[in-house]
Amino acid sequence: MTERGRFITFEGGEGGGKSTQARRLAAWLCELGHPVLLTREPGGSAGAERIRALLLGGDGFDPVAEALLMFAARRDHLVTAIRPALAAGIWVVCDRFADSTRAYQVAGQGVEAGVFRDLARIALDGVVPDITLILDLPPEVGMARAAGRGTAADRYERLDPGFHTRVRGGFRAIAAEEPHRCALVDASGDADSVWTSLRSETARRLGLPA
Amino acid sequence: MTERGRFITFEGGEGGGKSTQARRLAAWLCELGHPVLLTREPGGSAGAERIRALLLGGDGFDPVAEALLMFAARRDHLVTAIRPALAAGIWVVCDRFADSTRAYQVAGQGVEAGVFRDLARIALDGVVPDITLILDLPPEVGMARAAGRGTAADRYERLDPGFHTRVRGGFRAIAAEEPHRCALVDASGDADSVWTSLRSETARRLGLPA
Repeated sequence: MTERGRFITFEGGEGGGKSTQARRLAAWLCELGHPVLLTREPGGSAGAERIRALLLGGDGFDPVAEALLMFAARRDHLVTAIRPALAAGIWVVCDRFADSTRAYQVAGQGVEAGVFRDLARIALDGVVPDITLILDLPPEVGMARAAGRGTAADRYERLDPGFHTRVRGGFRAIAAEEPHRCALVDASGDADSVWTSLRSETARRLGLPA
Repeated sequence: MTERGRFITFEGGEGGGKSTQARRLAAWLCELGHPVLLTREPGGSAGAERIRALLLGGDGFDPVAEALLMFAARRDHLVTAIRPALAAGIWVVCDRFADSTRAYQVAGQGVEAGVFRDLARIALDGVVPDITLILDLPPEVGMARAAGRGTAADRYERLDPGFHTRVRGGFRAIAAEEPHRCALVDASGDADSVWTSLRSETARRLGLPA
């Protein structure tokens, strides 16, 4: 019987380098000989990518509708991509997962915590990441980096100035509540130093060669 | 202060004449002097129509993702169209609402009843129709009518043959559980006789001239 793959998620606010570090981690796991699926949310499967396009375009939805859409996309991603991969022994590295909805919609936009818990229970069938790497840095540093690399304007930028501070607080609260699953990684240094610390954190927690 | 509008929903399986009867009811309410919003689900608002297109196209979603999408669309419809209309004293006539998700996804496709209850609580903020007209007829009659009028193939047709029987059973169970809100209307007769009976039912329940 194939051993189940490991499920590794990256979380955190804008400009922390999640995508870059997720690629680096996936490449490292490949070098170690593991089959790897590198994916991201919202999106990562055909249906979820269509929901992503709907979330990013148009006039937007109220925070509860947005949470419902995020979990609809996540359900599709889980059922059609993540769960089959894990069952086949593939390691899954995912750029954002459920913690992002808790940080952005609950901590950031005021959706009730109970709504998040109910949606997670409905959509995820108990699937939880083996390790979650939370890239933490002050929002003003992250936003400046995101602006500097010329990516599309953050659709949350129109929200009040405290929004990104609340999102950061949301991620830090998750890390404090679930220290066994979550590693809070200081992302204020350069990409190489962040990579060094998150690789050693991952190696230690998953029993991999450092 | 403006009196809140009434919220009237039509429910039932395929081919029962919901759209036709909803138009007739809306026209009758207009004649009685009420401001009326005639709308339908999934859809009925800009965001919900985009979700509708996503649900009707593509390769489909698993039943839980479909329920999440239905309630995301319903939330948008409620927040941007139904609730503001009711608050402004407009009567809302809606072709399908939450009962359809309970009948199709729970009774028809086996989603847990608790999932439906949680999603309804999350998305609807306690908004419940004042009256729900459930057009009831044997599924084989309804399917033959729907086929005869040449509408697009039912995307639920690919499901097992018992599906539409379970959906009908789901609607009948809702009517039995909530007799104060729901009127089960025999839709097997011609459109005029169905209209006569549902108009008198609506008039009696809402205190309107028959």
